[in-house]
Amino acid sequence: MRLSRAFLPTLKETPAEAQIVSHRLMLRAGLVRQTSAGIYAWLPLGWRVLQNVARIVREEQDRAGAHEVLMPTIQSAELWRQSGRYDGYGKEMLRIIDRHDREMLYGPTNEEMITDIFKTYAKSYRDLPRNLYHIQWKFRDEVRPRFGVMRGREFLMKDAYSFDLTAEGAQHSYRQMFFAYLRTFQRLGLKAVPMRADTGPIGGNLSHEFIVLAETGESGVFYDSRFEASDWASTVTDYDDVAGLKQAFDDVTSVYAATDEMHDAAAFDALAPESRREGRGIEVGHIFYFGTKYSAAMGLEVPGPDGRKVAPEMGSYGIGVSRLVGALIEANHDDAGIIWPDAVAPYRAAILNLKQGDAACDAMCDQLHAALGDDSIYDDRSERAGVKFADADLMGFPWQAIIGPRGAAAGKVELKRRATGERDELTVEEALVRIRT
Amino acid sequence: MRLSRAFLPTLKETPAEAQIVSHRLMLRAGLVRQTSAGIYAWLPLGWRVLQNVARIVREEQDRAGAHEVLMPTIQSAELWRQSGRYDGYGKEMLRIIDRHDREMLYGPTNEEMITDIFKTYAKSYRDLPRNLYHIQWKFRDEVRPRFGVMRGREFLMKDAYSFDLTAEGAQHSYRQMFFAYLRTFQRLGLKAVPMRADTGPIGGNLSHEFIVLAETGESGVFYDSRFEASDWASTVTDYDDVAGLKQAFDDVTSVYAATDEMHDAAAFDALAPESRREGRGIEVGHIFYFGTKYSAAMGLEVPGPDGRKVAPEMGSYGIGVSRLVGALIEANHDDAGIIWPDAVAPYRAAILNLKQGDAACDAMCDQLHAALGDDSIYDDRSERAGVKFADADLMGFPWQAIIGPRGAAAGKVELKRRATGERDELTVEEALVRIRT
Repeated sequence: MRLSRAFLPTLKETPAEAQIVSHRLMLRAGLVRQTSAGIYAWLPLGWRVLQNVARIVREEQDRAGAHEVLMPTIQSAELWRQSGRYDGYGKEMLRIIDRHDREMLYGPTNEEMITDIFKTYAKSYRDLPRNLYHIQWKFRDEVRPRFGVMRGREFLMKDAYSFDLTAEGAQHSYRQMFFAYLRTFQRLGLKAVPMRADTGPIGGNLSHEFIVLAETGESGVFYDSRFEASDWASTVTDYDDVAGLKQAFDDVTSVYAATDEMHDAAAFDALAPESRREGRGIEVGHIFYFGTKYSAAMGLEVPGPDGRKVAPEMGSYGIGVSRLVGALIEANHDDAGIIWPDAVAPYRAAILNLKQGDAACDAMCDQLHAALGDDSIYDDRSERAGVKFADADLMGFPWQAIIGPRGAAAGKVELKRRATGERDELTVEEALVRIRT
Repeated sequence: MRLSRAFLPTLKETPAEAQIVSHRLMLRAGLVRQTSAGIYAWLPLGWRVLQNVARIVREEQDRAGAHEVLMPTIQSAELWRQSGRYDGYGKEMLRIIDRHDREMLYGPTNEEMITDIFKTYAKSYRDLPRNLYHIQWKFRDEVRPRFGVMRGREFLMKDAYSFDLTAEGAQHSYRQMFFAYLRTFQRLGLKAVPMRADTGPIGGNLSHEFIVLAETGESGVFYDSRFEASDWASTVTDYDDVAGLKQAFDDVTSVYAATDEMHDAAAFDALAPESRREGRGIEVGHIFYFGTKYSAAMGLEVPGPDGRKVAPEMGSYGIGVSRLVGALIEANHDDAGIIWPDAVAPYRAAILNLKQGDAACDAMCDQLHAALGDDSIYDDRSERAGVKFADADLMGFPWQAIIGPRGAAAGKVELKRRATGERDELTVEEALVRIRT
């Protein structure tokens, strides 16, 4: 993409309303624009990142055996009356009256709807277990939306819902999602720590939240240093191995980790001093096992192997997909701007032409741009070098291929790694190999 | 995907509420489930098709130079007051009051919002032309939603908005979208005819709608037989060629085509009798050039080359993405079910094991399934052959690889093409080549 034809607007000034660094950088780098309080339009750069995050979330849900659907944003109040949550949900629910005076709402979550859908099709215990998920916009009418996409009103969530015949089966489904989440956050380039959590209004008796470590995070966290080195992607290889998954789950959850609300000072102090870590973090996922709370309330039951009707055991599993974009920036930035992890970067490389119109510079840039294609952004504007450097740093592309007249004459690209600031003089071919690795 | 673990529920009975064939087949084949009047959840099979359609729409928008963004579903009423459309839009607009008593609405279209966003960033004529699009859920509170996803209330639309310095530029942008649409529908396996249209409440003076030919379509259409043979994908190769694009546009629009509302009997009768075609069709796209209607009303203007402020010339361009899934079925079905065009099929092939548990059958099915991977659905249920045949026909996969004990013993697969009913006895390797071609 040529920057001169793109829609990648940056702001020179830091918008006054932005209190945290991810919000400031998302506005300055042109990732999003607020359209109403707590509601954002995603501009091309932000939209590419959001899609990359969603793709990784989706791939790991699929790998763990979940099936993707898409439920609508607008729901009937009637469904929420069946579960008993309609009246209690309060003002965070955006309530709507349609032209026929029917009570509707913009879904803040989908336990009721998925239970109702599953009820239509589940005919027997042979239709269990199943785990259905979708990645859809939700609305929670926060009284004070703030921190940009970290606490918006309209936000993108991945929510999965599992249905099992037995409590043991449901706990296996829970553990599948537990490891799918660890793999997801690791692939996104984040350090995420699972912590035992309260179940809150969803109900149930087993719950974990996943906290991304970031110095600027909202919550204080205490954890064992073993979480810093963990490689979850290779821990679990077979999601159908019930005993193996339980063992891996027991191993991970026996390692100390807690937010300040749930902190157990005595247990933490029992760790070796060199293992104790205190830091800050951002909640990006939350999983729940809540038994038959919704299946019983909504009349979902199927004949079991002995013919007797059974209400399936359920769990629900959420990831804040749009929130993750903010969390990624909180965890990956410096004073100059964003530093995207490779896996989610909107473009892998920026090609900076320091002398637009110079034949050798233009030719070398065209060659790089043609080779990298859609994975690169070519800054072909008639701007000073300093402007191009600053914008590339701000927008955070992992690689910057810098082409000036002196280098171009010598057949050399200066390749800069955004994360480390390392620079190397390379041939075009060498630079392409480095960028593509 | 193994069918025994999938969530692909089919219905034996045709639901009484479905009046048209696409709605009946979408419910029976388990593509969607209605959750409220005119509001649908997309089940895995339908969701895969919807994503395939959206991907092709996206690729052709990108190819034509449009930039993807994502605007939110909920908009502020204030924006619509600026354009003057808020009060006039009537009851089709879903109006919402939030917890702070602010008037909001669920966007039925985005002219106002995109104009407001573009206004924030466009600093001069050098920021023109630009074309921004998104693929987002819309809501129109139809008084009588019907025909399934063909006339739902919550529906997925691709809407693009172009900004140009001059009327000539805007007409070039219009022609870019015109040909992007023809390419899109052709890639989807549809015959689409562009027809001059009224501009309606969007305003403006140049508009075309795109009608997909289908015997069960909602509108009568009259057209020149030249539309049956046209190959738009090769007509336009360079979207930046202003003169070439104008010539191609003039060529296509000089060929007779009209819905019954706009039909000109005299012009039609002037065609050679063997060129006259009467049929039925479904509107799947609509494009508008409306000049400065929104830019002027919303205060969008940029300094031109001479320093004088200019309100950009605009157009908007819509494709009914969820509606297209219905239109695809209207145009591609028989008494047994859906016949997906290859480009949008949810799975390219179904593998039908006629004797689950037979070692030779199981081995051959496993071999095919491993080779085809995510592009195939393996019917490994313990069901009669007749049930498997009927479900595969109903769900409409382009290929059926049928494995029975006699064939498996001889090393042969029976490969059936859903569209033609042709069957061939092939080795596994031959079948794989055929399916992948």
